[in-house]
Formats: sequence, C-alpha cells, structure tokens
Amino acid sequence: MKCQILRVLPTRSSFCSSVNSTQLARSCNGTIPFSGGTSLESTLAAMNEEIFIDFQKMNKTIAVHEQDMDVVVQPGISYDALNEQLADQKLFFPPDPGPGAQIGGMIAQGCSGTNAYRYGTMKDWVLGLTVVLADGTIIKTRGRPRKSSAGYDLTRLFVGSEGTLGIVTEASLKLTDKPENVRVAVGAFPDIHSAIRTAVGIVRSGHPLAAMELLDDMAMKAVNSSGYSDIEWPEKTTLFFKFAGSPAHVAEQVEEVERLAKEQQCVQFTFSNSADEADSLWEARKTALWNMIALKNDPSDNFISADICVPISRLGDMIAATKDSFERSGFIGSCLGHVGNGNFHAGVFFPAKDWEKAKGLMREAQKLGVSMDGTVTGEHGIGLVNRDALIWEVGDGTVATMRQIKMALDPLCLLNPGKVFKLWEGQE
Amino acid sequence: MKCQILRVLPTRSSFCSSVNSTQLARSCNGTIPFSGGTSLESTLAAMNEEIFIDFQKMNKTIAVHEQDMDVVVQPGISYDALNEQLADQKLFFPPDPGPGAQIGGMIAQGCSGTNAYRYGTMKDWVLGLTVVLADGTIIKTRGRPRKSSAGYDLTRLFVGSEGTLGIVTEASLKLTDKPENVRVAVGAFPDIHSAIRTAVGIVRSGHPLAAMELLDDMAMKAVNSSGYSDIEWPEKTTLFFKFAGSPAHVAEQVEEVERLAKEQQCVQFTFSNSADEADSLWEARKTALWNMIALKNDPSDNFISADICVPISRLGDMIAATKDSFERSGFIGSCLGHVGNGNFHAGVFFPAKDWEKAKGLMREAQKLGVSMDGTVTGEHGIGLVNRDALIWEVGDGTVATMRQIKMALDPLCLLNPGKVFKLWEGQE
Repeated sequence: MKCQILRVLPTRSSFCSSVNSTQLARSCNGTIPFSGGTSLESTLAAMNEEIFIDFQKMNKTIAVHEQDMDVVVQPGISYDALNEQLADQKLFFPPDPGPGAQIGGMIAQGCSGTNAYRYGTMKDWVLGLTVVLADGTIIKTRGRPRKSSAGYDLTRLFVGSEGTLGIVTEASLKLTDKPENVRVAVGAFPDIHSAIRTAVGIVRSGHPLAAMELLDDMAMKAVNSSGYSDIEWPEKTTLFFKFAGSPAHVAEQVEEVERLAKEQQCVQFTFSNSADEADSLWEARKTALWNMIALKNDPSDNFISADICVPISRLGDMIAATKDSFERSGFIGSCLGHVGNGNFHAGVFFPAKDWEKAKGLMREAQKLGVSMDGTVTGEHGIGLVNRDALIWEVGDGTVATMRQIKMALDPLCLLNPGKVFKLWEGQE
Repeated sequence: MKCQILRVLPTRSSFCSSVNSTQLARSCNGTIPFSGGTSLESTLAAMNEEIFIDFQKMNKTIAVHEQDMDVVVQPGISYDALNEQLADQKLFFPPDPGPGAQIGGMIAQGCSGTNAYRYGTMKDWVLGLTVVLADGTIIKTRGRPRKSSAGYDLTRLFVGSEGTLGIVTEASLKLTDKPENVRVAVGAFPDIHSAIRTAVGIVRSGHPLAAMELLDDMAMKAVNSSGYSDIEWPEKTTLFFKFAGSPAHVAEQVEEVERLAKEQQCVQFTFSNSADEADSLWEARKTALWNMIALKNDPSDNFISADICVPISRLGDMIAATKDSFERSGFIGSCLGHVGNGNFHAGVFFPAKDWEKAKGLMREAQKLGVSMDGTVTGEHGIGLVNRDALIWEVGDGTVATMRQIKMALDPLCLLNPGKVFKLWEGQE
C-alpha cells in the first residue's frame, strides 16, 4: 500500500469549492469488482495495482417470486444460467449481452443485447440493489415494487456506473413471460438505406417484434466464408427479424414485415416455419462476430470496434459513412447490430502497426454519431477507452457533474478508480 | 434575503467528513420550479419564503422527430396538449398522471398513471434533459439515442428528484405509436382476492393489456351515487381492462381475460364493441376520484390518501387489510388503482378534528406495504409529507446517500430545500 497526494480535477465550478480545492490522499489502492469478465473498453483494467473482488462464488439465486415475476440473485450468476433455472416456470430475464456475462457486470455496464428492441436494457430490469459503498456502509436501494417514486433513483444511478460508485452484492430483477412460438425471418436488401427504411417502417408500425438485427454485406460474406452455416446467403445488407407470441399474432406481424420489406425492394425474404428452422436462421446472426474472423487478411491482425447508437432516421447515413471510411482506409471491416434501436457495432481488422489509424477511424465514427444526436456507446460503456469520447458527447459540465457524484460517494477514489472519467491530474 | 448558519444532517459516516462537518451558510432563500402545480405530498410547498420559477410561458414543442418517434419540449407543456399535437402523426406519449400535469413536473415527480402497466413510468420515456444546476451551469444529460451506456445515468437521477437537484428547461421524450382499436371490458368480482387472482393470472399470461385498473366496492358505490354514469354498476370489487392493437390481437386477449376472470367467479363481464362504448365504460374509472365525493358524510370533511405499491402477489392481502382498518376507524374510505403493477391509492374522508387518526391510518398502511417489500409511494413522490416514510422504506444509509448527492450538487441547498429528506437540523 502506498500513500499518494493527488490533485482532484475540477468538478463543476468554484461554487462547489469544498471538492474543488481538495487534495486527495490515497492511502490504499483501488478495488475492482469482477464477475463474468466479458466487458469491453478496459472497464476491468487494473492500472495502479488495484485489488479485484471476484464474485465467482456469490452465484446463488436467493428467491424466485413466480407470481410477482421477479427474482433475487447474487452478482456472480450468468444470465443464461438464470434463464435455465427460470425456464420451467416459463419466466424470462431478457437482457442478453455477450455470452458469459454475469449479473454483477451486467448491472455495472448497463448492458443490453439483441432483446433490447422489444424489452429495453438492463436499466429496465433491475428493481432494487444491495450495494456496499466505499466506506463499507451497506445500503438497499429499494424492495421489489414494480414502480416507485420514493426518493432519488439510486438503483438506476448504480446501473451503468461501471463499479465506480459501489459494489453490488444482491439484485432484485424483473422478469417477464418466456417468449413462445418464436419464429425468424431474414430479408436481404439492395443497400443499407433500403434496409434501414424497412426497419424505420417496422418501428413506426408499432409491431412488438422480439428482435430486429442488421448484418452488412461484409458480415454476410463472413457467414458464408466461415463454413458454419448450411445456407448460402446473399452477400447483401440483411435484416434478421425475430417474432414471438400467439400463432395468430406472429402471422399478422410476419405479413406486415414482409409487406414493408418488399416495398423496399427486399430481394429475398425467408421465413422459418418451425422453432428449429428459427434457430438455424438465427444462428448466422448469433455467430456473426466469430464468423468475421474468416475475413482476416492475416491471422495476426488486431480488431477494434465502436458501439454507436443514433436516432434511427440517421442510421442509414451513419452506417453508409462508416462503411465508406472503412473502404477508404483499406482495412477490412463491417457493421452489424441492433438496428431496432439505432445501435450498431462497427469494427475493422488491422495490422498492429496501424493502431493509431484504426483508432482514428473509430473516433471519427463516434464523432459522427454524436453530431447526429447519438451516443458513443449504446451498450459497451466508457471504461478507460472512451473517456475522451464521453466528454465530446455530453460536454465538460455533464462529466464534471458525474465526477462530483463520484467524489461525494467515494471521496478517496477506492472504487474502480479512473474508469468513466479521470479523477486527478495525471491519472492514466 | 437573510443569512443563516445551519448544521447539515449526517450524510453517511465520518468517512465523508468534508460534508459532515460543514456548517451551511444560506445567503438566500430557496427556489422551487413550478409547472402544472398538480403534485401531491406538498412537493411545491414554500416553507421558508422560497421563490417560485413559473414555466407557464416555456410551453413550446421544439421539434417532433416523426421517424425517430421522439419529441423535444419545454417543461411547461401538458401531456394532453402534447398528445393532441402528436395525434395527426399517430404518435403517443404514454405517461398520464392527473389532468393538468405538465412535463416539467412529471419529470420532477417520476410520475405514472393508468398507462404504466403496459408502458412503464416517466423514467422510461425521458431520453435526455437540459438542466440548470444550482450554480447556474447548464448541462445536457445526453442527446436522443434510444439507449446509451455513456457514463452515469444523470437523466434518471433528475427524473423523480422533485426539483431538488436541478431545474429542467428542455426534455427529449420517447414516443410510441398511438394505440388503435381501443376496447374496454369490465368485470365485477365477489371479493378483492378473486379480483387480484385474476389480475395476477393476466400479468402471468404475458398479454400486453393497455391498462388494468381496480375499483373497490366503495368506489363503485360512489360511481353509482354520483349520477354521472348511465350504467347501474354492481357495487363489488371491479376490474377495468383496456385493450389496444389489431382487431384479431384484441379479440384474442379479450377471450383470455374473460376466461381468467370467469375462473375466479367474475359475476359480470361487460365488453365494449366500439370505441364510443369503450369511452363510456372507462368513464367510471376516470372519474372515480371525483365521484368519491358523493360518499362524504359531511361536505366539510377532509380527504387523505396513500399511494402504496407492493409486489402483486401481496396486493390482495394489502388491500384487504387496508379496507379492514378503514372499517374499524369508522371513516368512509376506498381503494382504487393501477393493479397491473401493484400500485393502489387508499383514501378516507375525515372531520378536521380527526387529522392525527386519519394520518395514522395512512402511515399504518404504508408500513404494511413496506413490510411486504413494497414502496410508500408508487407515483406521487415524497415531498414534505412522506419524508419519514422514505426512511422506514429504504433505511437511514440510503437516505444519507441521497443527501450526499444533494449536498454535492447543491451545497447551499437552493433547490426546493427540505423536500424528499431534511437537510439540516430543525428544518421544517
């Protein structure tokens, strides 16, 4: 343990002088809570000999309330294990980030996934939290009511705070009914704009599709090249639609989606007639990221990606501009994502020597997203990597306000220090 | 303007000594933002010569983004005026608290209403906010992406903070498609428990009803006595169901709801065959609070109510116990509310001299709600009236954490001082 005297960065203005003038004495290193370890953006990077708290053994389901459709869990359970436990009771926990993610990390990241179009993100599925604060105080943000106006929404302040405000030791999660009669349709489009116009039409129609995902031409080429799929796909911008509900309601939605797709010159519309066929069609979306590896020029190439989310009317222009910039760069890259809510992932493969150039491409895409009233991260978070981008997006004053909350709850900067924003001058 | 030296109440522990030891010098009185003025729980009470900021003239719609299904507004527009403006574009803003409420106050209160069962509460419909902080800094919490993981969720921290953390001057709001083909059904039940079992069955079925509301026997008696309704209603616990969607989907839901209701000995199930009939059936729910006045023993009687929300499996016991306590008290009272998410309003009429007794009844009901893992306020907020109840519900440590955030963002306690929790010793 070392003791350092550090000058805290400005919070908002001289108005809040008690914090501004503080010099921070750190008598011990920071602490990083760790569950599934699947986060991106260096959220879990230990920069200064931080201590990890591993939640591997705190993986219990404490209570399932079937009638209330909620569950109380520890942070070390994964969402897929939880859904397996809930399946017999026909209950379902929707947030579905990358495989292996656990509830603690999902809360820290405010994550989402393919189900977010219909069901929203992690923020919408946490009822209440038990949190250990930086000074060891244990608080419970609330019980299990479906809604509450009782005081500040600390629950949603902790969700997405990347372990910087407190350590979650228990969570009450909302559940819903397990989707039944799941069907999938896939449509290939002549270009990105016709695909996005279809997506906008579907969103406006109000049909509650279970998911709507986009893979661009390069991603579809990767699916074909990987050899994992039995189907030979058109190498065009492709939308994957997931439906769930009563057979009549699904039929109604499929008819409407096919009509909207064909209005936009959809060149191939394939519909699954059974649950097995649905799984097989969805497989291409599910394995897209891994399939991308088939496109690598050189096995030693690195990969970098961005996670932009813009208002859906701008998504066509956004993806088209990003793809243009990839083409100009000479790197192989693609765009895919959760088109129903305007979120997409843009990534390129690049040789190690071109790190700055590749990073510049991502920064350029993020800045374009912000200029379209979007966000630099729809679901991956800020971590270390996107700290500058957070400032471009929301401005100095907003980041300073976040820092002020951090300094109020964790004045010695013990919890995942330096993530989301810098705390002191010279912090890495 | 007067200057007072005040001793700030503890925040969390001696760990946060910078705030704990502060003596607060208030050089001016506080400020209370004011829009529709319909809030309950004394959120807008001026206790110490506070200055009101009236948003009456900041009532503009700045931009409607039809494809993105969002709108940018000023705080002084009412939700019904907004929905009138949006109707031609078949867009809809769901939160529906009491008539006259305006967006600024709806944000401050984190309100909801009858639409919350299907659509969620105000927290789910605010994309981003422009906020003036206590020191005059203007921040924007984010743009208009449908989702974001960029830093702390300041948007949802301000929503429900009752004007104590900042003053909202602009809001981007999410919209959805205007519900079409709205139909209503009404079922009368032998007792509260059979009605709640029906509600639980419907929630578990996963059918996305537009609303599900409960009026107890006393509330139905009030509807009959008021003379406003053409229908002679059974004076029994009654559920009001609202459906919206395609005709086939509505028909499917009505059939399932009728089946579930009849399983629970529903004695009368009435369904509207047209939009006009639907309006006429729903009228009884809409005017329930005003109709209640017909039950008053004495025109000078006062009214007090509570706004409890519990996990739905406990709602039958909760309402039954509350009704028993009303009967024992000798006051006339009833329970009604948003049963789909476990939220109900319990209220009694009482002579002025019995204020303490009537207040005690409400406190007893709130404490029972908390013991059932519920909340003392599902949608009305804390204000001045429920400050003690907030402490019973979430505990000292959680309230101290809220106070710490308040002190970080508004160290001179200029913004709606004393609401949600007390700030200094002796504060009224």
